[in-house]
Amino acid sequence: MLYSRAVVPYSKIVDSIPAMVPFVAPEEIEEQVGRPFLLRLGANESPFGSSSFATKGAKAAVESLQNYADPRALELRSALAKKHGVSLESIVLGSGIDELLSLFCRLFLDPGDTVVTTLGSYPTFDFAVLGTGASLQRLPYRDDKPDLEALTSAASSAKLVYLANPDNPSGWFHDKAAVKLFIDHLPETCYLLLDEAYIEFLVNEVPIDLDTSSKKVIRLRTFSKMYGIAGLRLGYAIAHPEHVAQLDKIRLHFGINSVAQAAGLMALQHFGHVILVREKNARCRETLYEMGVRRGVTPLPSFTNFVTFDCGSKDKAEAHLKQLLQAGVFVRKPSQPPLDRCIRITIGTQEQLALLDQLWES
Amino acid sequence: MLYSRAVVPYSKIVDSIPAMVPFVAPEEIEEQVGRPFLLRLGANESPFGSSSFATKGAKAAVESLQNYADPRALELRSALAKKHGVSLESIVLGSGIDELLSLFCRLFLDPGDTVVTTLGSYPTFDFAVLGTGASLQRLPYRDDKPDLEALTSAASSAKLVYLANPDNPSGWFHDKAAVKLFIDHLPETCYLLLDEAYIEFLVNEVPIDLDTSSKKVIRLRTFSKMYGIAGLRLGYAIAHPEHVAQLDKIRLHFGINSVAQAAGLMALQHFGHVILVREKNARCRETLYEMGVRRGVTPLPSFTNFVTFDCGSKDKAEAHLKQLLQAGVFVRKPSQPPLDRCIRITIGTQEQLALLDQLWES
Repeated sequence: MLYSRAVVPYSKIVDSIPAMVPFVAPEEIEEQVGRPFLLRLGANESPFGSSSFATKGAKAAVESLQNYADPRALELRSALAKKHGVSLESIVLGSGIDELLSLFCRLFLDPGDTVVTTLGSYPTFDFAVLGTGASLQRLPYRDDKPDLEALTSAASSAKLVYLANPDNPSGWFHDKAAVKLFIDHLPETCYLLLDEAYIEFLVNEVPIDLDTSSKKVIRLRTFSKMYGIAGLRLGYAIAHPEHVAQLDKIRLHFGINSVAQAAGLMALQHFGHVILVREKNARCRETLYEMGVRRGVTPLPSFTNFVTFDCGSKDKAEAHLKQLLQAGVFVRKPSQPPLDRCIRITIGTQEQLALLDQLWES
Repeated sequence: MLYSRAVVPYSKIVDSIPAMVPFVAPEEIEEQVGRPFLLRLGANESPFGSSSFATKGAKAAVESLQNYADPRALELRSALAKKHGVSLESIVLGSGIDELLSLFCRLFLDPGDTVVTTLGSYPTFDFAVLGTGASLQRLPYRDDKPDLEALTSAASSAKLVYLANPDNPSGWFHDKAAVKLFIDHLPETCYLLLDEAYIEFLVNEVPIDLDTSSKKVIRLRTFSKMYGIAGLRLGYAIAHPEHVAQLDKIRLHFGINSVAQAAGLMALQHFGHVILVREKNARCRETLYEMGVRRGVTPLPSFTNFVTFDCGSKDKAEAHLKQLLQAGVFVRKPSQPPLDRCIRITIGTQEQLALLDQLWES
């Protein structure tokens, strides 16, 4: 018998990972609280619904579920390439940004490699890193923003650095000049995973240019938030064609479902949806800001479809969270300092916010 | 600078894998042939369409695409557990069997481990193994069947063994007694990935009992074939709860789209669909057998929704393939000996087979 690890059968990487889930499901929290939620404002889902074009595309695709979708997803990738002015070979799809984070971690990381991120930023990225056997160096927020200077310094000994911009859960957006400087200062040996899940909600800010001639930056986008099709699982990366080609060695080739492909293709033509939702989101954000201020919690500046409120202390934040959950409102609370003194609320419609106003005690 | 692999930035595993895709897309073959297919009989998709219950579930789910699905998929997993008489904790979902193969490989395999499979069986499994840095030992078919004795012998130095039963592309089904003997003879240190994608097409044969008290066997099932929702990407594994719990460390928690979950749940209640499709498939199989015989190609016994025809030689098989593709019929040909002397045709409806009869030259 050549093999002798009968007692511990799993891979070394799996053995090394503690039991964890990136997010407790809202359905599980409902069970804990003992009642169904009246308001679902905890997962930054679109309160304005899906793009009606996307829904139309989805409905058409449902008529031929028996066939596999094109594993190259040529139509959708071509449309994305055109939208962004990049080559087809620069676009790769995933089942949401989550899958792409996992794939890019597997693409770049060996066990023992180091990855730099912000402590308390998107936990599914941390989950993806641990799944490769690499180590995380997690740098705290500074002034409630991802600390670009500290990330740059730490990048010299790292293979990957993660930046969500706009950031979740802080809501902050580093402007074009700041991100450009950050990228310019990254060592050649470190790649940036730039998670732009919330970028379509920006009103006046201009994001950094797309440049797939450089291998340094991998940009990640999603159809979940602005286009409102989180349930379908559809995201994409814009990256150097060599990265995309190498991903073909490990990605799930028939992974992107046909309904998501059809819905995404239609959503890209729905310009009115983006403009309208961006405006509605901005208006409702003001309403939500004001609701917090009336309760003595201070909104952090939000560039996204959620608002994070500074409750003054972790205890006070937990009290707000508990009160809201028990009142039937699904919201979340950052778990890591310094943002653990905050609660995070998805921006709802005016109707939803009116209900929140009734349910949220001071 | 601690890190010095600037020239070769990818992980050691990715570097070690040759460029490959498990299947060339039918859409790509259409481009090569220069015309769209008239008949799509190459991917073992359901010619009888989707379960109408599944489509109904999908349509309902399309009305609320903005929300993430339950990452625990409690409803669907509970229904599957009930169907199979196992515990909820024994069921894990994937985006088709493909994703589950990749996940179970990552669960068990370290670089350098050995995995045993049948040469020329499901290529996506080989792809999943290579993605972990493990090595493949591929044993040839014997008498056009997976060689259980040879697989057993090789398993003594392997961590995983793969068996598709019924097998693709041979179409063969090893009966209950043979599989039970095979499992009993596997060393304690080797786990069996038992791919049962086509098992619902069995008419008279009884598959082996489900037993999740043993850790040795992981069974893989799909909604793609019998239920006809390949486009949605939905499969599941029945495995020991400890395996399932460990998979939670690396699986994509929000990966199974809401439309697939809803469609799958409804499909499980559609008993009439299974009975009807099984019967239709068996009848059309006889028609397809006979069409091959008239052309001097010999059908291998099929227990599935496809028939593999022995054309006598690789050259003759390639000639049939080429003729069919150019006539507008999408079919595939096994690439590895000894089955490379065959072509594989999905069982179509009687109407589709009538068209095939016109298009397939002797």
